Amino acid sequence: MTTRIEHDLIGNRDIPAQAYWGVHTLRAVENFPITGVPISHYRELILSLALIKQAAAQANHEIGLLDDVKAQAIVGACEEIRAGKLHQEFVVDSIQGGAGTSTNMNANEVIANRALELMGKQKGEYQYLHPNEHVNMCQSTNDAYPTSLRLATYMGLLQLGAALERLKLHFAAKAEEFNDVLKMGRTQLQDAVPMTLGQEFQTYAVMLGEDQQRLLEASQLMLEINMGATAIGTGICAHPDYAPLVCKHLAKLSGFALVTAPNLIEATQDCGAFVQVSGVLKRIAVKLSKICNDLRLLSSGPRAGFGDINLPARQAGSSIMPGKVNPVIPEVVNQVAFEVIGNDMTVTMAAEGGQLQLNAFEPVIAYSLFRSVSHLIAACDTLGENCVKDITANRDFLKQQVENSIGLVTALFPIIGYAAATEVAGEAFHSGGSVSDIVLARGLMTREQLDEVLQPAELTRPRWVSL
Amino acid sequence: MTTRIEHDLIGNRDIPAQAYWGVHTLRAVENFPITGVPISHYRELILSLALIKQAAAQANHEIGLLDDVKAQAIVGACEEIRAGKLHQEFVVDSIQGGAGTSTNMNANEVIANRALELMGKQKGEYQYLHPNEHVNMCQSTNDAYPTSLRLATYMGLLQLGAALERLKLHFAAKAEEFNDVLKMGRTQLQDAVPMTLGQEFQTYAVMLGEDQQRLLEASQLMLEINMGATAIGTGICAHPDYAPLVCKHLAKLSGFALVTAPNLIEATQDCGAFVQVSGVLKRIAVKLSKICNDLRLLSSGPRAGFGDINLPARQAGSSIMPGKVNPVIPEVVNQVAFEVIGNDMTVTMAAEGGQLQLNAFEPVIAYSLFRSVSHLIAACDTLGENCVKDITANRDFLKQQVENSIGLVTALFPIIGYAAATEVAGEAFHSGGSVSDIVLARGLMTREQLDEVLQPAELTRPRWVSL
Amino acid sequence: MTTRIEHDLIGNRDIPAQAYWGVHTLRAVENFPITGVPISHYRELILSLALIKQAAAQANHEIGLLDDVKAQAIVGACEEIRAGKLHQEFVVDSIQGGAGTSTNMNANEVIANRALELMGKQKGEYQYLHPNEHVNMCQSTNDAYPTSLRLATYMGLLQLGAALERLKLHFAAKAEEFNDVLKMGRTQLQDAVPMTLGQEFQTYAVMLGEDQQRLLEASQLMLEINMGATAIGTGICAHPDYAPLVCKHLAKLSGFALVTAPNLIEATQDCGAFVQVSGVLKRIAVKLSKICNDLRLLSSGPRAGFGDINLPARQAGSSIMPGKVNPVIPEVVNQVAFEVIGNDMTVTMAAEGGQLQLNAFEPVIAYSLFRSVSHLIAACDTLGENCVKDITANRDFLKQQVENSIGLVTALFPIIGYAAATEVAGEAFHSGGSVSDIVLARGLMTREQLDEVLQPAELTRPRWVSL
Amino acid sequence: MTTRIEHDLIGNRDIPAQAYWGVHTLRAVENFPITGVPISHYRELILSLALIKQAAAQANHEIGLLDDVKAQAIVGACEEIRAGKLHQEFVVDSIQGGAGTSTNMNANEVIANRALELMGKQKGEYQYLHPNEHVNMCQSTNDAYPTSLRLATYMGLLQLGAALERLKLHFAAKAEEFNDVLKMGRTQLQDAVPMTLGQEFQTYAVMLGEDQQRLLEASQLMLEINMGATAIGTGICAHPDYAPLVCKHLAKLSGFALVTAPNLIEATQDCGAFVQVSGVLKRIAVKLSKICNDLRLLSSGPRAGFGDINLPARQAGSSIMPGKVNPVIPEVVNQVAFEVIGNDMTVTMAAEGGQLQLNAFEPVIAYSLFRSVSHLIAACDTLGENCVKDITANRDFLKQQVENSIGLVTALFPIIGYAAATEVAGEAFHSGGSVSDIVLARGLMTREQLDEVLQPAELTRPRWVSL
Repeated sequence: MTTRIEHDLIGNRDIPAQAYWGVHTLRAVENFPITGVPISHYRELILSLALIKQAAAQANHEIGLLDDVKAQAIVGACEEIRAGKLHQEFVVDSIQGGAGTSTNMNANEVIANRALELMGKQKGEYQYLHPNEHVNMCQSTNDAYPTSLRLATYMGLLQLGAALERLKLHFAAKAEEFNDVLKMGRTQLQDAVPMTLGQEFQTYAVMLGEDQQRLLEASQLMLEINMGATAIGTGICAHPDYAPLVCKHLAKLSGFALVTAPNLIEATQDCGAFVQVSGVLKRIAVKLSKICNDLRLLSSGPRAGFGDINLPARQAGSSIMPGKVNPVIPEVVNQVAFEVIGNDMTVTMAAEGGQLQLNAFEPVIAYSLFRSVSHLIAACDTLGENCVKDITANRDFLKQQVENSIGLVTALFPIIGYAAATEVAGEAFHSGGSVSDIVLARGLMTREQLDEVLQPAELTRPRWVSL
Repeated sequence: MTTRIEHDLIGNRDIPAQAYWGVHTLRAVENFPITGVPISHYRELILSLALIKQAAAQANHEIGLLDDVKAQAIVGACEEIRAGKLHQEFVVDSIQGGAGTSTNMNANEVIANRALELMGKQKGEYQYLHPNEHVNMCQSTNDAYPTSLRLATYMGLLQLGAALERLKLHFAAKAEEFNDVLKMGRTQLQDAVPMTLGQEFQTYAVMLGEDQQRLLEASQLMLEINMGATAIGTGICAHPDYAPLVCKHLAKLSGFALVTAPNLIEATQDCGAFVQVSGVLKRIAVKLSKICNDLRLLSSGPRAGFGDINLPARQAGSSIMPGKVNPVIPEVVNQVAFEVIGNDMTVTMAAEGGQLQLNAFEPVIAYSLFRSVSHLIAACDTLGENCVKDITANRDFLKQQVENSIGLVTALFPIIGYAAATEVAGEAFHSGGSVSDIVLARGLMTREQLDEVLQPAELTRPRWVSL
Repeated sequence: MTTRIEHDLIGNRDIPAQAYWGVHTLRAVENFPITGVPISHYRELILSLALIKQAAAQANHEIGLLDDVKAQAIVGACEEIRAGKLHQEFVVDSIQGGAGTSTNMNANEVIANRALELMGKQKGEYQYLHPNEHVNMCQSTNDAYPTSLRLATYMGLLQLGAALERLKLHFAAKAEEFNDVLKMGRTQLQDAVPMTLGQEFQTYAVMLGEDQQRLLEASQLMLEINMGATAIGTGICAHPDYAPLVCKHLAKLSGFALVTAPNLIEATQDCGAFVQVSGVLKRIAVKLSKICNDLRLLSSGPRAGFGDINLPARQAGSSIMPGKVNPVIPEVVNQVAFEVIGNDMTVTMAAEGGQLQLNAFEPVIAYSLFRSVSHLIAACDTLGENCVKDITANRDFLKQQVENSIGLVTALFPIIGYAAATEVAGEAFHSGGSVSDIVLARGLMTREQLDEVLQPAELTRPRWVSL
Repeated sequence: MTTRIEHDLIGNRDIPAQAYWGVHTLRAVENFPITGVPISHYRELILSLALIKQAAAQANHEIGLLDDVKAQAIVGACEEIRAGKLHQEFVVDSIQGGAGTSTNMNANEVIANRALELMGKQKGEYQYLHPNEHVNMCQSTNDAYPTSLRLATYMGLLQLGAALERLKLHFAAKAEEFNDVLKMGRTQLQDAVPMTLGQEFQTYAVMLGEDQQRLLEASQLMLEINMGATAIGTGICAHPDYAPLVCKHLAKLSGFALVTAPNLIEATQDCGAFVQVSGVLKRIAVKLSKICNDLRLLSSGPRAGFGDINLPARQAGSSIMPGKVNPVIPEVVNQVAFEVIGNDMTVTMAAEGGQLQLNAFEPVIAYSLFRSVSHLIAACDTLGENCVKDITANRDFLKQQVENSIGLVTALFPIIGYAAATEVAGEAFHSGGSVSDIVLARGLMTREQLDEVLQPAELTRPRWVSL
């Protein structure tokens, strides 16, 4: 294997000649053999790094710190990466020590070496263009890295918002379809009072809509960046004009409404925005899990369960029980939800563990957030496409349950009073009889009165009844 | 003991004659002997229940469902409770089954019995005024209970916002005081570059300010109530005019900008707003813990630690080590933070476990939120009053550390280049020498250039240097 | 109010004359106004502190460091506390900074002042017997405090073990009672194959038995103490004979098989044993929650649910739905489980946060563990007594479901093959017909063969069938 | 692409001709596009599945249910997989619905098709050897799948035990090397009393040794398997002789001391053993994180930190601060610890969510456990090899700190009393003077007495001093 020699504070190392990464990346690969999942797995992160390095080069060029040749070469290299090239050169592990320095240096090295080539030089000839001095100019890991995480997370959140919208529409369509299906509502798993299946499904659409709102709010926090902060936020080694310029260029390149944090020292050490986003992801997970718990419950059976609805068969449910069909799609969503809740705990611990002017644990925050976001997107889409849109209702069975329910007595409570109603319910439970029959037998109401009060359409909305 | 007899679906029970609570409360006390902490421990909850029952009575009276005598009696009883009376009659345990029914019935019974007295009747003469039929009129536990939790939480969050503001001002005052104290900033616990102690403390003020913003946003979610939902949100047994009227009365009585949830079925089963609030409380806990970790670190010593600052001595630190003073105030805040993070997990599990039209686990959500909020208020106040406001800086020691630091080489990096700067740093580390001396000895810069670049006031803000 | 003056490193303070606690306790009360729950709330903790101080006095007396008069006075005071006196003098808050020093000093002061009285002196005359020099002799908070937590936790775990045993016996009795009740087993909430209700309840007994085993193992870790470690585990200021002697006396007084940790430095800083115990409590919580989820599911209905079993009615379930009965006992157990899981997170964070030679966060570990243990005990007992022991089965309904089930086809699979069995199941699902009829109609088996294979008693145990 | 047609309860599907997996696997791949990480990523899982299918075939052959040809073919296919072949055919996603059925069917299909080839048949000719009827004979997903998870986890835990041992030895070697290095111990980050650096490092070795013990205990729980349980644990469709035989064969093939669970119904639904293992992994994570926090703290500096020790430089620490070296190895271990703690939360939620006769969420439990185990192994090894073994001590600096410390006063406390010692400490703190000088100046002890008491070697072990 042909190699070139690179040098760092520890000494010299051979680098494969064809590698765009350099000695700093090599050290990191050796130091962090943890997950086997390199950062290139997270496409949005690589795109974000390229955007940042390009914006920095443009800002430095505009200020006059970077000459035309170097600026053009760096910009060219970044545009190639943004077009999808060289991603396989981002080889450091997703979980890494060093507060992201290895990710930042991996980017600096890949871009420098590609830029050198574009300048007609050889990889490693850093005397012409240096990873730290030129690609990283006016930057520190402490601003470039968290900014890349924010951009990458924001890109993911946009996609998640769209996935939630798609899922919401599936539920809303079902709500419409089931608009006239009367059924028993249940509280605490006990029969309560009638509602429509449409109302039940509309609830899920509304829930997801609220989650979208919370997600939108939280995602705005990702747009506040700390470029210009450099080492600890004081801006040491950054030209005073640089911070506003790099933000301007980055906003233009990304199309995002980025702003520079008002206090860069705070912005450099604080992970509160990631905690907030993770908290909202956890909230979404809790809701999705609740919805899937309900879908599994409502479709339980076919003969010894609730049997309100049927989920579409997606695969054989058992290796031993022929014909068994299981709610496999909601089950996988539940599991993604549990993972997201666990990831939130990881984010919480990592955020709490930050010390003084920097949080060294942002890599695991990113690793957790990226997985939460991408798995939630996949979960929403498989739930909508492979399950919700083909759900059917057992209409007759549901209607029968309402007619046969003890819960109808609640509708009579304002007329016959709490004590009498309690006694009717008790008799119905023990005798197995119907509420109407018992009310009639006890002479509490007439048949006409009962018919009036128990009109199905009236049972599922506010109404005051009295005789 | 004199008793009266009350009846429920299980049978008759003797109730102490002087008790304002009744048979439903008694059953709950027997069923849930869990924490030993009755709901009366949470004053805001009791006040909220009284507000709700009063608003409901006023709404029902306005509609014409409740006559003058009964309405007046209920209102009178509620006003007494709001004035602080009868709280000791709220005896059910904080952790309870039944989705809050026992709390709601405890309120219904206490109010009914006090109202009966105000009507000149005896406790227990429910034929004149009934806990379920009149105090609970047009209500269900499923709307009255979560609404009481929202109001009580909102009251707590207002207080927490004020406590955060007080603490923020303590940090801001210190930031002002330490404005001119130069010190070494640290990243990853290693010496980085200079900053001022004022910048460090200002960071904490900014962090808390951001938390206040997030708290304010989340607290708005508490203002959306589901009164009028009754059993499952369909509004069964509620007069169609009731929902807007009870909201109007409750808003007026409480002074809060309450609105009725647009979809009452969703609002009745969804705990998302509590999850969101708990998530923000967790975020605040993470920040407070981080700040306290820093304070303990910066004050470590007195001789074998960082020694940047001194916390005020608040108590003898040891039973065996005379004269030892420990950072006891930050330590207690850390612990509250850990508790709040644990409580958030409880809230998450309880929210995820909700099924179908109701979440039966709201009591433990409330129990967790109430403790988180009240302990965070106490933590903020002891931190500000008993610690932050009396912190002092070791000015001379800090100045010396900056002058002696290797990190100064970062300021020279744009001038002498990354490679040369790395070598200077290496020599300084191994020889123990000063960066300036080594730069001079190596002929990299002149004394005048060094003095120009290393002016203290210039080191802590953005600046581009070149020769 | 009459007062006495006491002095510490900060200065003089007035102490109420009748108070047994002193200046160190007073400082703590002022510094930590967090939960409002004083340590006296945890009776076992106070008993443990008294046991430790008594054992230390006896050891020091045996070595000759403490004269007869002082030793006798300290022992006398401790025995009073062990008999239940003076507990209200333990007034510091459950969540406190200072790594337990305030709890230890509260004990030292109360015991010293009571001992002074027993010596015929006045409270506060520490020249005759000093809280630090005599009551705390050869001790540090860093050994006395964690040892008190271990003893108190151990006492609680013994009680929890007994509560698990009681609950297990309730389930075992039901298993016996339901031994012959055939029903459908369910996997993934879908009908699976037959089992007996006795088998289902026996499972819960077995689960709890396994939890008892894990609890017993973990509780042994509480028996390893670090008395003799003093400040950081090196044993500074402790007589070399002291460590074995105090362990001997403490074992004798407590009746527990205590041993001294082999490495006292490690034992002084490590919270691993608490993490282990908390992890096992979480495991128990997970199981109890799972069991209660099942009980709520199996008793869902009465008409639109599973309806396998009936839980005893314990209270009216609703303020608006007359006659509704809810599974309030399992619900409260679920909530305790969620709390315990949250507490485990608190313990985890506190353990992780410990630094160098001591974990300063043991108070919140104790606060969390004590609540987890006592609430679990209460939960087990209310579950067993108020629910499990009165559960009844819907025998006929369950039998009918088995006969009518599609899952019976699994028993035929070894005979008719997977493909044919899948088709039979499919037809049964779509037509609503019975498996037997379809198998006969398709000529796959004869009536005699079917009767042979589908004998109820044979369906719930291993058997190979072939024709 | 050449294809073959396969059929399931939904209908026909084209399968690529070269694929060993079949229609059930295809459905799963389409249903669960979640993580992009197929189960083949977890080598131990694939090995375990092959072991189980081989053992089952051998047992069924021994009973006489499977003829020679089929048994030999299945065994042959399994041995190939155990030798590392065909792993890429295990393509279903790590997070999947269906309670592991897709993983089990993926194995059944791959083995059936490879066995068919070994029999001289074509893939897909299931009339000769069927995935469900023969490969899965006497099995269900509900026993084969959890058993595969237990075996795979056990294999991982063995490796983790070895990694802990290696790391422990590194710490023990350092403890030996630093045996004579006197330094200040610290509690609550404040200077306490002297100890040796050897004692400090020995502590870490002891901690890890205790973790090994807990891990060993918990790993035994993985050896209890439920083969023979089939669908819900009743053993339906399994020959009565099968359970003991398959356990015997599996134990022999794996070399593990496997036993059949005493109650198979309980064993089939219970995830307690996984919760226990995950809890112990969390405990290990907590300890590793604590140790790494300490290492980062002790090596903080080089000039504005603790400076007790030096970690080896492993890579350049900063993209902007030349010469900065950061504790990157402990940092990556901290992050793995945070991930493991988050994973434990996921496991907890998944275990709690199990319902009735089966836990449908075992796939995410496995996914979490496998990552926790493998990342912990990597973390232990990089910590030992890349950090601990090259740590050096700043001996002179540490010695100076002890001599200069105020904490020495603790050694004098038994002689001069608590009050006098407190005053000496206070004067030392405020004047900056040495404890010895102040004690002499106050005439509390003589120089000779001081020299006697303050002998370095005596300060770090139990000793009673008096004059």
